[in-house]
Amino acid sequence: MTSRTILLDHRPQGQPTAETFRFISSDVAQPGEGEVLLKTLYVSVDPYMRGRMNEGKSYVPPFEVGQPISGGAVAQVVESRNEQLPVGTVVVGNLAWSEYQVAPAKGLQAVPRDAAPLSYYLGLLGMPGLTAYFGLLDICQPKAGETVVVSGAAGAVGSVVGQLARLHGARVVGTAGSAEKVAYLKDELGFDEAINYKTDDVAAALAQACPDGVDCYFDNVGGAVTDAVYDLLNKHARIALCGQISSYNATEAPVGPRPEPKLLKTSTLLKGFIVGDYYKRWPEGTRALTQWLQQGQLKFEETVTEGFEQIPQAFLGLFSGENTGKAVVKVADPE
Amino acid sequence: MTSRTILLDHRPQGQPTAETFRFISSDVAQPGEGEVLLKTLYVSVDPYMRGRMNEGKSYVPPFEVGQPISGGAVAQVVESRNEQLPVGTVVVGNLAWSEYQVAPAKGLQAVPRDAAPLSYYLGLLGMPGLTAYFGLLDICQPKAGETVVVSGAAGAVGSVVGQLARLHGARVVGTAGSAEKVAYLKDELGFDEAINYKTDDVAAALAQACPDGVDCYFDNVGGAVTDAVYDLLNKHARIALCGQISSYNATEAPVGPRPEPKLLKTSTLLKGFIVGDYYKRWPEGTRALTQWLQQGQLKFEETVTEGFEQIPQAFLGLFSGENTGKAVVKVADPE
Repeated sequence: MTSRTILLDHRPQGQPTAETFRFISSDVAQPGEGEVLLKTLYVSVDPYMRGRMNEGKSYVPPFEVGQPISGGAVAQVVESRNEQLPVGTVVVGNLAWSEYQVAPAKGLQAVPRDAAPLSYYLGLLGMPGLTAYFGLLDICQPKAGETVVVSGAAGAVGSVVGQLARLHGARVVGTAGSAEKVAYLKDELGFDEAINYKTDDVAAALAQACPDGVDCYFDNVGGAVTDAVYDLLNKHARIALCGQISSYNATEAPVGPRPEPKLLKTSTLLKGFIVGDYYKRWPEGTRALTQWLQQGQLKFEETVTEGFEQIPQAFLGLFSGENTGKAVVKVADPE
Repeated sequence: MTSRTILLDHRPQGQPTAETFRFISSDVAQPGEGEVLLKTLYVSVDPYMRGRMNEGKSYVPPFEVGQPISGGAVAQVVESRNEQLPVGTVVVGNLAWSEYQVAPAKGLQAVPRDAAPLSYYLGLLGMPGLTAYFGLLDICQPKAGETVVVSGAAGAVGSVVGQLARLHGARVVGTAGSAEKVAYLKDELGFDEAINYKTDDVAAALAQACPDGVDCYFDNVGGAVTDAVYDLLNKHARIALCGQISSYNATEAPVGPRPEPKLLKTSTLLKGFIVGDYYKRWPEGTRALTQWLQQGQLKFEETVTEGFEQIPQAFLGLFSGENTGKAVVKVADPE
């Protein structure tokens, strides 16, 4: 059996292109003891992968030139040498961009076939949803009546953060980068207020949207939006520091107003985190999110591209800002 | 009975002077139900009081012009209309700069006569010691073998932080502003390393002093020292944000490298706090500190000035940077 695989051809300078990726075709090995042979069903494409294409360590190690690109994927077991994962099981895990591959069963998580669309295990019920769940509920801990601000609110993480905060009785204010996204947040997701950071005066709009100050801030963005939120913090505010996308393309260390005096004056807690910090509690998070989804209390949007050969284009599309919700690629149907 | 009292004469511009203070003499009232008449024994002078001389709210409200200046003080009950605080009891509380005054018993804390020098209830066993105790042990939670950095390490708070961290088995590195203070930290208090931020290359010296990175940072200072520490943070570092003295005299909002990318990459926790946040746990802190003191495991230095009329000079002396340890004024002996 042969399989196509996508390698990192070279480290891109600035914006990646189709040439950043190289397709190869190769024979697939037989699974050894404790391993399974997987058929890929859905592949996740995410902005953080751009960082992994650079040299140098961040919170995840870099991709290697000439080696497969990898990331979150949903796959089905087609041959098994592990009792826990019999043939037919659908799993989610960190996998190569390959049609078929052998992987150790350890590190794969079996998921139910019927609880939700399988692609949701890369979105609402996967890393983005779990990131929202733990950052909001473990770090921010919003209480009924409090004000929660989310930056990057229309993204796969931010849209879940806002809905979870509403479920917990908070007033929710989001920032996003287009009029369509602002309308989506208010009309579809039930945000109390949404601000277009590209066209509004962010500081003034935030102050108006948060007349009682800010108790919780879930930060996906950093920069000027974050500076404006810091000026509105209430005593004992909590900040989940999840992303800093405003600085990901910066070539020099970004400079801004020092936040410490504001954090000190308000006894604020600020916590950086990645979803991997909560690895042991993932099953709890998936269970809770699945339940809210089945109760009709959470909405989730996806942009689904079809076909293994479309993975690079789907990835490149992340940077045009025109996707809505989570971007995934459908590679095959389950058997 | 008459008593001298020190009022705020006017709001100082920049450095306060002797003219910032006004002495008056007035009759002392009789204590009403639930009140006590107090004779002041020791008065605390602290840098944070400079901020209270300005208009505008910080984490404590401003002093009022023409009204008594107040702060931490140790006093003795000389008349009582409260059962819990009989005549002779020594108390600590937030009191006016007066020789005698009437105060509600509520808000005063009785202290033992013989457990420690009474002035220590303004230092090691008072606000500075409790600030060190809760910030280090509740926020930083240092483990044996970890590296703890303390800025402002020779101050009343920092010197206790460093000793407590050593007691918990951590490697302790302090920053201070003179060769004498650096020698004091290493030779008297047992710090593993100490850095003179005025003469050393702080970033290089810190990197050398912390070969295994920084797990905990207790920040009294902010600014360039803090920037350098951020570059050395280990995964899951903890930062207790206690003071930002480097910016207290700034006339514009200070600007610096944005810390968020560094805090995110390391999943760092940063928490602003004031000792009042831990009000309910003060008795626990005082008990623990008293025990360590009595076991000979904590050292504490004081600069004691004698005489009620010397309070303004003792306060002004804080800004010359020549005091060692906690500055207090002795007003009277207990009876």
